[in-house]
Formats: sequence, C-alpha cells, structure tokens
Amino acid sequence: MQWTKVLGLGLGAAAFLGLGIILGHFAIPKEASSPAPQDLDLQILETVMGQLNASRIRENLRELSREPHVATSPRDEDLVQLLLQRWRDPESGLDSAEASNYEVLLSFPSQEQPNLVHVVGPTGDIIYSCRQTEENLTGEQGGPDVVQPYAAYAPPGSPQGLLVYANRGSEEDFKELQTQGIKLEGTIALTRYGGVGRGAKAVNAAKHRVAAVLVYTDPADINDGLSSPSETFPNSWYLPPSGVERGSYYEYFGDPLTPYLPAIPSSFRLDLANVSGFPPIPTQPIGFQDARDLLCQVNVSVHNRLELRNSSNVLGIIRGAVEPDRYVLYGNHRDSWVHGAVDPSSGTAVLLELSRVLGTLLKKGTWRPRRSIVFASWGAEEFGLIGSTEFTEEFFNKLQERTVAYINVDISVFANATLRVQGTPPVQSVVFSATKEIRSPGPGNLSIYDNWIRYFNRSSPVYGLVPSLGSLGAGSDYAPFIHFLGISSMDLAYTYDRSKTSARIYPTYHTAFDTFDYVDKFLDPGFGSHQAVAQTAGSVILRLSDSFFLPLNVSDYSETLLSFLQAAQQDLGALLEQHSISLGPLVAAVEKFDAEAAALGERISTLQNGSPDPLQVRMLNDQLMLLERTFLNPRAFPEERYYSHVLWAPRTGSVATFPGLSNACSRARDTAPGSEAWAEVQRQISIVVMALEGAAATLRPVADL
Amino acid sequence: MQWTKVLGLGLGAAAFLGLGIILGHFAIPKEASSPAPQDLDLQILETVMGQLNASRIRENLRELSREPHVATSPRDEDLVQLLLQRWRDPESGLDSAEASNYEVLLSFPSQEQPNLVHVVGPTGDIIYSCRQTEENLTGEQGGPDVVQPYAAYAPPGSPQGLLVYANRGSEEDFKELQTQGIKLEGTIALTRYGGVGRGAKAVNAAKHRVAAVLVYTDPADINDGLSSPSETFPNSWYLPPSGVERGSYYEYFGDPLTPYLPAIPSSFRLDLANVSGFPPIPTQPIGFQDARDLLCQVNVSVHNRLELRNSSNVLGIIRGAVEPDRYVLYGNHRDSWVHGAVDPSSGTAVLLELSRVLGTLLKKGTWRPRRSIVFASWGAEEFGLIGSTEFTEEFFNKLQERTVAYINVDISVFANATLRVQGTPPVQSVVFSATKEIRSPGPGNLSIYDNWIRYFNRSSPVYGLVPSLGSLGAGSDYAPFIHFLGISSMDLAYTYDRSKTSARIYPTYHTAFDTFDYVDKFLDPGFGSHQAVAQTAGSVILRLSDSFFLPLNVSDYSETLLSFLQAAQQDLGALLEQHSISLGPLVAAVEKFDAEAAALGERISTLQNGSPDPLQVRMLNDQLMLLERTFLNPRAFPEERYYSHVLWAPRTGSVATFPGLSNACSRARDTAPGSEAWAEVQRQISIVVMALEGAAATLRPVADL
Repeated sequence: MQWTKVLGLGLGAAAFLGLGIILGHFAIPKEASSPAPQDLDLQILETVMGQLNASRIRENLRELSREPHVATSPRDEDLVQLLLQRWRDPESGLDSAEASNYEVLLSFPSQEQPNLVHVVGPTGDIIYSCRQTEENLTGEQGGPDVVQPYAAYAPPGSPQGLLVYANRGSEEDFKELQTQGIKLEGTIALTRYGGVGRGAKAVNAAKHRVAAVLVYTDPADINDGLSSPSETFPNSWYLPPSGVERGSYYEYFGDPLTPYLPAIPSSFRLDLANVSGFPPIPTQPIGFQDARDLLCQVNVSVHNRLELRNSSNVLGIIRGAVEPDRYVLYGNHRDSWVHGAVDPSSGTAVLLELSRVLGTLLKKGTWRPRRSIVFASWGAEEFGLIGSTEFTEEFFNKLQERTVAYINVDISVFANATLRVQGTPPVQSVVFSATKEIRSPGPGNLSIYDNWIRYFNRSSPVYGLVPSLGSLGAGSDYAPFIHFLGISSMDLAYTYDRSKTSARIYPTYHTAFDTFDYVDKFLDPGFGSHQAVAQTAGSVILRLSDSFFLPLNVSDYSETLLSFLQAAQQDLGALLEQHSISLGPLVAAVEKFDAEAAALGERISTLQNGSPDPLQVRMLNDQLMLLERTFLNPRAFPEERYYSHVLWAPRTGSVATFPGLSNACSRARDTAPGSEAWAEVQRQISIVVMALEGAAATLRPVADL
Repeated sequence: MQWTKVLGLGLGAAAFLGLGIILGHFAIPKEASSPAPQDLDLQILETVMGQLNASRIRENLRELSREPHVATSPRDEDLVQLLLQRWRDPESGLDSAEASNYEVLLSFPSQEQPNLVHVVGPTGDIIYSCRQTEENLTGEQGGPDVVQPYAAYAPPGSPQGLLVYANRGSEEDFKELQTQGIKLEGTIALTRYGGVGRGAKAVNAAKHRVAAVLVYTDPADINDGLSSPSETFPNSWYLPPSGVERGSYYEYFGDPLTPYLPAIPSSFRLDLANVSGFPPIPTQPIGFQDARDLLCQVNVSVHNRLELRNSSNVLGIIRGAVEPDRYVLYGNHRDSWVHGAVDPSSGTAVLLELSRVLGTLLKKGTWRPRRSIVFASWGAEEFGLIGSTEFTEEFFNKLQERTVAYINVDISVFANATLRVQGTPPVQSVVFSATKEIRSPGPGNLSIYDNWIRYFNRSSPVYGLVPSLGSLGAGSDYAPFIHFLGISSMDLAYTYDRSKTSARIYPTYHTAFDTFDYVDKFLDPGFGSHQAVAQTAGSVILRLSDSFFLPLNVSDYSETLLSFLQAAQQDLGALLEQHSISLGPLVAAVEKFDAEAAALGERISTLQNGSPDPLQVRMLNDQLMLLERTFLNPRAFPEERYYSHVLWAPRTGSVATFPGLSNACSRARDTAPGSEAWAEVQRQISIVVMALEGAAATLRPVADL
C-alpha cells in the first residue's frame, strides 16, 4: 500500500471516529445518568384496583369481629398479633411492622358488681329492674367478653331520685324544665342519645344538681321509629329493644392522665383530683325497652372503675424508594366495644386487604412507592382517640415535618348508598381524581364520583357542581392529626341514602348487635361497598405516595376562606361595625392567600410542562405539604385542649365563619362595648389574619422570603 | 476507484464511526446531564476572605455613627435608605432588598419636660441637681438628637423621699436592708447597674414600696475603678463621670402591645392596662458623678411617654442557585441609643462590608450560593429586640420550616483580645472550621482559633481541649430565633482579655460617649478586629450556604445533654430520690440521643464517601437543620413569654442542668412531699424526656419512622 493511501485511510477513520464521538456524546439520550423521575404508574394503579377483593375483606371482617375486643382485652392483643403476622408475612407483608404500647387510663364496669338501674316503690321495694346486658338474640350477646353497657369514665355512685325526662340533655332542655317549675335537684334525668355529646348531658345535668343521668337510644332517632322485635335485628338492620349504646363520656381526647405527653411509663401523670373532662355524676346508658318502662323513683348504681391499662398501636411500613422521609399515613383503630363488626372492624378489614395487595406487589419486587407508606392500627380509640393521640404526642416534630397526609378509614361502611368524605380542602382534588376512575358498587355503571355527587354536592365557584366534602370534627383518629399537628387529613366511608332512613347512625352502633352477620346480611351483602372504599383509599394512597408532584391542591382552600369571610361580613359585619372593628385586614389577607395560591398553581403547571429536576419538585412539594401547618397556632385557643388549627377548631357560635371569630362574637354579643370579650374578638381576627398572611408567605416563590 | 475498495473504506468508516459513538456515549463524563453537585468552593472562600477590608469597615462605621440614631428617629430612617441603597447597588448589591415596618410601642423622655433628679433640703429647696445630659466632651454629646438619659418604659411620676443605697437592687439586696431595720417605704433606692436585669431593680424595689429607683454606673464595675476626667474618655476608653447608661427596662421582648402577633397596623393591641413587664415605679439612670454627690432627700421627676412609632427592618436577599428555599440568616440591629458607634454600628459596619463583597461577586456573575442568604437590619432592638421579634411572629412557619441557621453580629468588637462565640452545639463545628483558616489580628501568627482557645476553652470528652462557646441568653436579636423558633443560632464578637479589665462591658455602653473616635482611638485602632469578625462571619455564611452537606454537627449536642444530666444526678439526685422521683428515663433518653446522633454521623460519612444524589443529601440535611426544632415545646413554660426551647430557657435554679428541671426543683425544694411543686418537677422531667426521645426519633433513618 502506498503511504499516501494509508494516511488517507487514517485521516478518514479519525474523522469518522471524531464524528462518532460527537454523535455519541450529544445525540443519544443519557438514560443511565438522568432517568425519568419515579412517578405514579397507571399500570400499578390498575393492578391494585383489580386485586382489592370484596371476599377477602369479608373474610377479614369475619375474623376481626369473631370475638368482642374492647381496648386492651386479651382479644384486642390477639388482633395485635394478627396484624403483626399479616404485616410480616414473607409474601404479602410490609417492610417492617412493630407494635408499641402506652399505659393509659381506661374505665370499665366492675365484673363483680354490675351497674344497675331499678325502679323503686314508695317503701324502697324494687318494682322494676333494667336489663344488665343485652338480650342474647344471636348467641353472640352473651358470655364474659361482652362488656356490660356503661358510660366510660362516669364516676361510681348509687343515687336514687325521681325520674325526670330531659329530652337530649342539652343546656336548653334543662332550662326548659326549670322554666316549667320542675325541681331538678336530686332527680335522675332520663335523656336520649344525640343532639349534644355524651359527656355534655351529664355536665349540663350536674349544673342543675341532678343526681344521675340515664341515656337511652330512641327508636325515632335510630330505627326510623320501628321498635318491635319482629322489625329489628336479626330480622332487619334496626336495633333490638334491648340494645344499648356504649361509649366514652370523656370530654377531651387522649389519655386523661397525660395531656400533651405520651403515656409512656415514665411520663408524668396528673393526680386524679386534677383530671378534668370526666362526667361529674353517675351516668348509665340503657335500651329503649327499659326507657319506656321506667317510672317514678329510680335507683341507679354505677360501679365503673378507672384502670391503668397497656394499649397497643401497630405500625407497618413500606419504605419509600426515592423520598423515604415523606410519610403517607393510613390508619384505623382496632378496639371495639363488643364484637365491633362495623365499628371499627369494617375499616380494619379494608386496611388488611389494602396492606395485603400492596405488600404482595412489594414482596414480588414489582413495585416500591416513591414515598413511605405507614399503616397504623390504633388502640383504645373508643375511650377517646387514645392510641393515635399518644402517638402524635410522642413523635410530634417528626410527624409534623414529614407527613404528607393522614387517611382515616374507621367505619368503612355505614350503608351502601354513596361515598362520604370528610377532609380539608387540599385533599379534595386527589379524592376526586381517584373516585372518577373507580366503578360504583351499586346498580348502573356510574363511577364512585358520579354516584357520590348525586347524594352530596355543592356548587363551587371554581368547578361548578362537585361532590361536597364534610369537615373534620373529632369523631375518629384523624382528630389529633388535623387539629394538633396540622396535617392534611381525610376520613372515607360508604354511607346512607338519607331519603331512606333518618337513623342517627347505623342502629346497632356500640351495641352487642354489631356483629359479622349484621354486616353480611344487612349492611353490605357481597361487600361491594367495602371493596369500593378499599379501592378509593388504595388509589388515594398510591397517588399521594407515588406522584412526582404531590396531588394536594392548596388553592382549594380559597373557597373555604371566602365562604368564611362572606359569612363574617353578612352575619357579623354590622355588629362588628357597631364596635368599630374592621374586617378589612381579613379581607386583604384572604385576597392575598387567593392570589398567592393561584400564582403557585401557575408555577406548578409551568414546571410540569418542563423537565424539572427532583430537587425543584421537592421544594415545591414541601410548600404544598406544609401549607396546612401554617394554620396552626398553639396559643390561639388555650382553653381548647389540642385544638390549634385556626380554621377547624370547634365552633360553638352560630355564624359559619372562622371558629375563633364566631365563638368570640357569640360570647361578646351581650357584653358592653370595650369589654374583655370584645378585645378577644379583635385578638381572634388578628390570629386569623396572621395565619393567612403566614400561609400566603409560604406559597410565595421560596427565594423571595 | 474499485467498488471493493469503496466498500472496504465504507465498512472501515462505519466501524470507526460506531467505535466513536460507543466511546462518546460511555467514556466521556456527562458534565451537562449530571454535574457535580454545587459545593463549597475554596477559591471563592479565599477571595471573600481577601476582599473583606478593615478600612472599608472603618468608613462604614464612620458614616453609620455620624449622628445619633435612636429607633424610629429621622436618622434611623436615613440609615434604612443607606442600607437599601447599598443592597440595591448595581455593582455590589444583592438580588433584592426591601424595608418593612411595624407599628410598635416605644418610650421616650419628654422633649419639653426633661427627667430631673434633685437633692432637696428640709424646706424643699433644691440643694443639688443631677445632670440632665452628659457633659459635651467631644462636641458630639450635645444637640437635639442626643436623647436624654432615661429608663425606657419606666412610668412617669415625681416622687420625693429619703435616698437609700440598695447595691444592685436584687431581691437579696432589699431583704438585707429590711433585715437591717431600714424603712424602705417611700424611699428613693439608689442602685448600680449589673447583677440583675434593669427592669428587675424596679420590680424588686416596688415590692418594698420604694417610690422610685435611680440606677448609676459604678466605676468599679465599668472603669476598673478609674473615675477622674483625666483617666476617662476622651483620654482613655473609660467612661467619663457624666456618662449615663440608657436602656430598656421592659421585662420581655418584642412589641409590648402585640405579644405573639406581628405589630402590623391591623393587629390586635393590648389595652395599656393589660400590659405586663413595665417597671412599676419611676426609674431614672444617672452617672457616677451624680451618684457620688447624692444626699438625703431626693426628688425624682420622670416624664417618659409611651409612643406608637413605625420601626423598620431592612432585608436583603441573595437567592440560592440550587436550594433557594433554605435560608442562611445573618442580622444585626440598626438603632442605637445615641451615636452607637460600638452598639450596634460596629456590627452594621461589618454587615455592610460582608454584603458588599458577596454582592460584588454576585453582580459579576462569579458566584451564587447553593442556598439563599438573607441579610437583616433590625429596628428597635434597644427597646426589647422588637424588630426581630415582630419579624419572627409574622413569618413564624416559613422561617421555622426553612432556616438553616441564624448568625448575629451585634457589637462586633468589645475589645481586641479574642473571638467570643455564643451558640447552640450544632454550630460549634462550622465556627471551628472557619476560624482555623483565618489569621488572628493580634501580634504573632496565630489563627483566630488558636488565639481564641487561649482565652476561652474547655476540655471536651470528645475533642480534648477546644474553644468554649457560651450559651445564648436574650441579649440581642438571636433570642426570638433560638427561643421562640428553635433555629440553630450564634452570636459572634471580638472581646476582652479579662486579665486586663474587669469592666462589666465596654465603658461607654449606651452613653453619649459611644462614638466613632472612641472606636477608632481606643477600641480597635486599625479595625483589625472588625475585619477578623467579618472574615469569621463571612466564612461561616459561605460554609452554611454553599456546602453540599450542611456543616451542622448535631452530635455535638450530646456533650451538653450529658453535662446537664450529670449536674442533675450529682446535685439533685439525692433530693429527687427522697421524693421517689427517678432520673432513669432521662438517663435512657440521653443515651438514646447519643446513640442515634452517632449512628447518623456514620451514615453521613458513608454518604460523603460515595456519590450521593442531591435528593439524598437534602433529606439528610433536613434532619440536621430541623434537629434544633425538636427541642421546642410551646407548652413547657407557659409563664415564660416566647421561651419554648427546653434546653435553653432561662434558668433561675442554681443547678446547671435542664432549665425546667432546675427551676422546678428550686421551687419545690422547701415544699411538702406530694405538693404541686413536686408534681411540676415530674412534669418537667417528662417534658425533657419527650423532647430528647423526639429528637432521637428525628435522627433515626428516615424510613424507620
């Protein structure tokens, strides 16, 4: 070969090599070094939806509700082991699962001396005795594990007095009796469930020196008026005449001896003399059969005892693949009053099915979420949300810093008509997205969303007609998460068609008739509604744990703020003006929040249309996750234990506005201008303004400070 | 050409092209798609250290202290404009700068009726009058802008009574006088500065029905005993006989009318009748010249007036390039009592030099930090840390969520001997790293660190002999950041050789003699110490804002916890045992914290030796940044306004342990077993245990919950 040719070949090769290097470096996408960020996988979502199985939920429920399992009972502890076994299963378990326990103060009837209610004659002879337990209609209402109906935390005592019917036991009810000239001192007040909280009936009665309170379940409230044995369980879903609603009569929540401290053994415990919130007088619930038969002079013997017990929470974890320090929490309580097939086992049955399906995908190596998922089975909820509250006290900071949202499914199915959701505005959008994609269990081919909107709806200025979410009170374990920690929360369930029943709640609530057969025959035959709740919760969990951008829509808070503001202007504006109190700063703060939320929404869209790096999205997600926290102010309502959320604290005032403002106005209304009460109105407005301004500040571009 | 050759050439070229593509794709580092994460750049650090300039600091100080600039005065507002101008300079400014203001309650002497102190004879004739202002020694002590010496927030009044010397005005001092049979009612108490807080002197005096309090500066406390004009300023750094220390006599901090609310115009303001923390009786500071001459019957006329004023903060921002939502805050107050050359302008002069050097690099495009840097010039600090406190109230959540650390440089130079640092344990390591690399201004060739260790040191169980950091009280604007928000904080200054002077503080503190010449001639001729503080602060800022891994060493908290624990065991153990109170849970909690902190340290090392992605490091940095927050408990000390940090709340008990425990024991000591006070001891132990357990929980691997 000639040397010129060799050179020519060499040069040519070099040129091609160079071109190749350039092409290789610039023209081929760099998959290895910049993979697409992990995001919600629709295939996985579909798999999960398909695998959530009604029959398995039914089998879970059968096992969970086989025996009574009141908090801390041996059967409650057996269920702790069942949960641990499921969550540690090598084929369908989670990454890890642990039980932890707290030493908490519970209240139980005495085994030796049952609580008694007698009607006594003029000479003290017993004319009539109320039932000590429910009638054993299905073979499940008897036996040592069925706790006698009682009012937890009611003090012992054996007063005797004339029976006075006091309706619902509200303040107004007792005042009305007084107005009618009825002497209340030393009487036994017969009240019915509903209207005011359980404990409040005794508190109100005690103010009139009533000696004891009986609380019965009225067929009009719970059974759509039906009361005969042939019309009630086991012949229908209605409560039998002997059914008695148990319940906690404690005013607050959490362990009564350790407010704001976890009830670990070393924690300081209040002296019993310093505990507040227990009913002041003996109180006993009874069935309507007995209520109907009560006459004249009544003797009530309550022998409840306070006991320190160890109550367990069980926590199961799926570690996040990318952001393990972001937690999606899903929980329900485990303890029941008796068998608790509906309350709470219908929720726990769903919890176990969800953890099985996700655990199986995990163990197969098919899937691991972007963020961590935590499943929780809380103890001693029935006594006052004790397990969940102690947990939030123990891990306050960590949970506040890292929790994306809390999802609660307690009673998963009250009835079969429709989904019902309570939650704060940021969770609305993710629930909507989830429910639009899932078939409703009823007849027809509607989505859960389309069915839901038929029962609960509102006209949104932004979206038009949408399903309406209820707000979160303190009815289940979401309470400490939203009110004490400021974590965006929701509670999911299937529930009634209100045109078909006016029952205050499902009729066997907290009675010995809340059993598996009750659910299987009357509440959700086929378990389709249970499956629908499992699918809804499963989809919400996956969306929250897997989506690259957190699906929390903070701008949905604007509608709430605007409606609160409008209520204040319309219903309090004139009154406030008389006292020279301006709502101007509140108007400005709401507008500022609205503008900042909208601007953030636009920045999110822009980012979603680009290819943002994971750190940018993390910073944005932190803004979304932490928005709810900005509404907390531990000094806003010092007299309201745990309640720090300035938008969702309990509202006693009649105006549907910011609760602190509504309550303060209601108290100030009849006081003189310049009173302390009017100063408190001004302070409450400032607290809301500060919270809204602070919230708006966290939504601004982060580098603007 | 033959076709076989063409084919051969083509094949060869294709092969080379292919090889090139392979080489290009796999063998060349992908700079564009996975750049090394932005980290501390030592070159930039060196540049910044080199450019921080003593002469420029001197010029800053000359301008800043040219005129008196008490909070909200026209000159204070001029300085707001100066700061804005500097921070908006196109060549050396920051990304943005804004002033914001609060409407706050300040206290000033009357222009028309100066406060007076007279000695009166038996017939009411004036025998002697104290000076109304300082002697005009340098031409700068006269004029309308020099505020008359006064006790801010002391109430007006003109009592007359016998003079009683009451030493430092502590509780013990008044008790001692009482023991000696001296009738205190209706007297004027003459006290000297030091020992207890300013306001406390009046509070203590009022308990004994003293009519008014005078407070003078004793030459023994401030001048190493020297008092003649020839020995004092302008002939030395010592305070002239006519010098009077001004100061706020308010007990708390923040705007007195808006505790826990920002003092924006719309915020609710307390009625004056409901404000607590003001001195209860007329109080007036005087110079030692006057103090020496006072005799017998004294008349004090105080005409202070409370006024609502607008006080400005100025904030300047350098946006972070990678994590703009992480803030390194650096601040100082702007307002002085008179010219305030030392307090606070020596700090502001450093602040301006730092912002100039960093701003210049920024504007040139040479550098932008990884995280955001925020410079702050606070208003109305002298009246009670008002500007900084209102700022933390207004942006509570956002600052808590995002602030890496707060660095305070108030008085940057008290004297030239050594660096002095107050701070929480996590900042120790970054200050050590910075000061080891900077030359000390004094003679010799020591680093700031090596010089520092000669003056302040301790034997660390972990590191051996190291410089010792002081703890943070409430002496400057760091107080709301550490006590109210739980942000790791530090205060930097150059200070005294204690073997050379026993002055309580630099002698002209809060007097009209704190002027530029005083600094230039006596305090820091050449401004080398100012430059040293600027370099230290600059290096700390760069390390905190630029390092990929946050240089906060949380495991350094273990030593503090252990020393608190040992003090409790040694000095309280026996007493607690008598009352059946165990320290066991506290021991266990400290051990758990220590173990978790050590384990985290190991995980950091492992990660640093690998090539972690930015999200992993972000999660770790969040654990470090938020650790300090876990020690906050807003319900721990309800009577201590703003103090929520369970490790650094004010300690009044004598035992150097956890403040809540120390104080509770000190109160319980003389009460009966089972008293409320002993219950409080147990509650305080639980609060610390919960905080430490919570802290340990946040240090655990994040996916373990």
